[in-house]
Amino acid sequence: MEINSEANSAPSAIIDKALRTAMSAGWEVRGTTSPNPPVGAVMVSTAGEIVGTGATQPAGGAHAEVQALAEAVGRTDGATAVVTLEPCRHTGRTGPCTQALIEAGIQEVYYLHSDPNPEAGGGAEALREAGVNVTQLSAPEGMPDALIPWLKSVQLGRPHVTLKFAQTIDGFTAAADGTSQWITGEMARQYVHEDRAHRDAIIIGTGTALTDNPSLTARFPDGSQREHQPRRVVIGRRRLADVGENASNLNRLGFEQYAKIDEALQELYASGARDVLVEGGAGLASGFMNAGLVDWVQVYQAPLLLGEGISVLAHPLTNTLKGAARFSRGQVVALGDDLLINYVRVPRNASPHKP
Amino acid sequence: MEINSEANSAPSAIIDKALRTAMSAGWEVRGTTSPNPPVGAVMVSTAGEIVGTGATQPAGGAHAEVQALAEAVGRTDGATAVVTLEPCRHTGRTGPCTQALIEAGIQEVYYLHSDPNPEAGGGAEALREAGVNVTQLSAPEGMPDALIPWLKSVQLGRPHVTLKFAQTIDGFTAAADGTSQWITGEMARQYVHEDRAHRDAIIIGTGTALTDNPSLTARFPDGSQREHQPRRVVIGRRRLADVGENASNLNRLGFEQYAKIDEALQELYASGARDVLVEGGAGLASGFMNAGLVDWVQVYQAPLLLGEGISVLAHPLTNTLKGAARFSRGQVVALGDDLLINYVRVPRNASPHKP
Repeated sequence: MEINSEANSAPSAIIDKALRTAMSAGWEVRGTTSPNPPVGAVMVSTAGEIVGTGATQPAGGAHAEVQALAEAVGRTDGATAVVTLEPCRHTGRTGPCTQALIEAGIQEVYYLHSDPNPEAGGGAEALREAGVNVTQLSAPEGMPDALIPWLKSVQLGRPHVTLKFAQTIDGFTAAADGTSQWITGEMARQYVHEDRAHRDAIIIGTGTALTDNPSLTARFPDGSQREHQPRRVVIGRRRLADVGENASNLNRLGFEQYAKIDEALQELYASGARDVLVEGGAGLASGFMNAGLVDWVQVYQAPLLLGEGISVLAHPLTNTLKGAARFSRGQVVALGDDLLINYVRVPRNASPHKP
Repeated sequence: MEINSEANSAPSAIIDKALRTAMSAGWEVRGTTSPNPPVGAVMVSTAGEIVGTGATQPAGGAHAEVQALAEAVGRTDGATAVVTLEPCRHTGRTGPCTQALIEAGIQEVYYLHSDPNPEAGGGAEALREAGVNVTQLSAPEGMPDALIPWLKSVQLGRPHVTLKFAQTIDGFTAAADGTSQWITGEMARQYVHEDRAHRDAIIIGTGTALTDNPSLTARFPDGSQREHQPRRVVIGRRRLADVGENASNLNRLGFEQYAKIDEALQELYASGARDVLVEGGAGLASGFMNAGLVDWVQVYQAPLLLGEGISVLAHPLTNTLKGAARFSRGQVVALGDDLLINYVRVPRNASPHKP
């Protein structure tokens, strides 16, 4: 990922506020825009007021800039645009955003991330050629950035992978007798449901599918379904269709099955998925870790000690401390007595970035 | 522990500030005052200014109120005292604090915790009889409270026990080959050293003593010794004195050994210890947990996954989720990429209190 080497380190208060607003707008739509990036855009009038906010609509719909311009209509001449991603210059299913900004009379554009897409990129240059002032911004401390998984995905040519598990303090995802409902409390479970609604796909192994009979849906606290549902993906060779009752939830709701992890990620990327969540079990989690295919880890940690039970990973990664898989710590979220701790994988010989 | 049922929920800004200052003063001296409580006291002048701050001195030294009065000398007539513990009315090695407050002309006393000591208690009543206004305060949100372990210890008639361990995300305190240095980073290790300087004793098992040859000292980052050193306690039947080199650090620095946990806690309490830290290993940690003798848990969690290794506890507490030992979550401290997560044991049929 490109780090903003030419970044403007001290934007004015209104530009900072506009960037945070744009980042929040992009954060809200993550999971619903793939294969397009979840971008947020804000228009600031010549009087220094936020007059339009937009975010990427589902593929085929308006880009964030166009949305924000529409809201700001009549007040865009000489105005400033603040966007989380460099405006695109290519014509896909929608027209280029650079052209829309120029035509609306925007005089100044601030953007957070460069566009890594060779087809869409070059927007900053195109804007400058049209006489627009263009500045790249640094990410404000502590703001969640919806574009990081998307950028990583485009860079790697596979979906960004978050490995999620719920565990006791001492690292068990279930007790020795297999009981695991509910390790975490109500707040953590609701958080998981909201998180699922922002993913392109949820992935589990055949073992979990057969044992837990999960629905993998994103629900509201009252049990009703959220609007956006992720794809349900099962990885493994055991057949779910034949097992009748035990696989009934997934059979009823529909799922995709792949024999192997590589195959699954390849197919998911090709069909537009950019951000996927691996929910276990321990065998699949080990498979992803051993293949170097985990980018982030989400640990929902419950305030319990068991002393024995089922571990997070089914197989050793190493037998010595120096061989441990290393992460940098991201945001920590308090969910009642539970914690959600986010970690970012640190590849060997590479620098970490934080969620 | 008594909850402040008569607490004044909205003290004035200056009283709130004085209470926080008193709590900070008490926090600083914890571990150096036993068997006396680590109390903080602040004097507020009739003009509403903090004119004296004090904390309990080592046993035989001045109590917090007397220290604060000394600093405020000449400005105590009509003044207000804010103390973390109800002022004592008994004459021990020092005179009663209630008498000192009355003689100094204090008109108003605010205190946080009631004194549970039948000999020292009744201070609030004695002050009221002398015409002083006395009010009990509630603990401010998020302030560390040095008196909680001391109060719990007096209530239980044994030292307050904190079980500490450093682990990977997946709950291993060492890799399969036994390597454990360093699971956590420099900031976490320095935090441990500062924490040790505030404990009455550090307890380990004979296995850890023989394997790790620890010094259990509280050191500064440059390696030099901190002023206050905790007692070093080893529990188990294996003899350390005979093993020569392997036990050299503890032999050189001095240690106490007890065969059993109960015996150790009894002797430690009798000799004045009120707040002890159990540093492992897994066998001793299991012993404390199984005996119901753990009050708080400190988890230093490093951003690593191992997949296999040595678990926090050597023996199962239960084989089913409902039997898990339950905690409430206390403060979370970020130490670089490591986290310190504090937990408070929730006894069955009892309500938790937070550190």
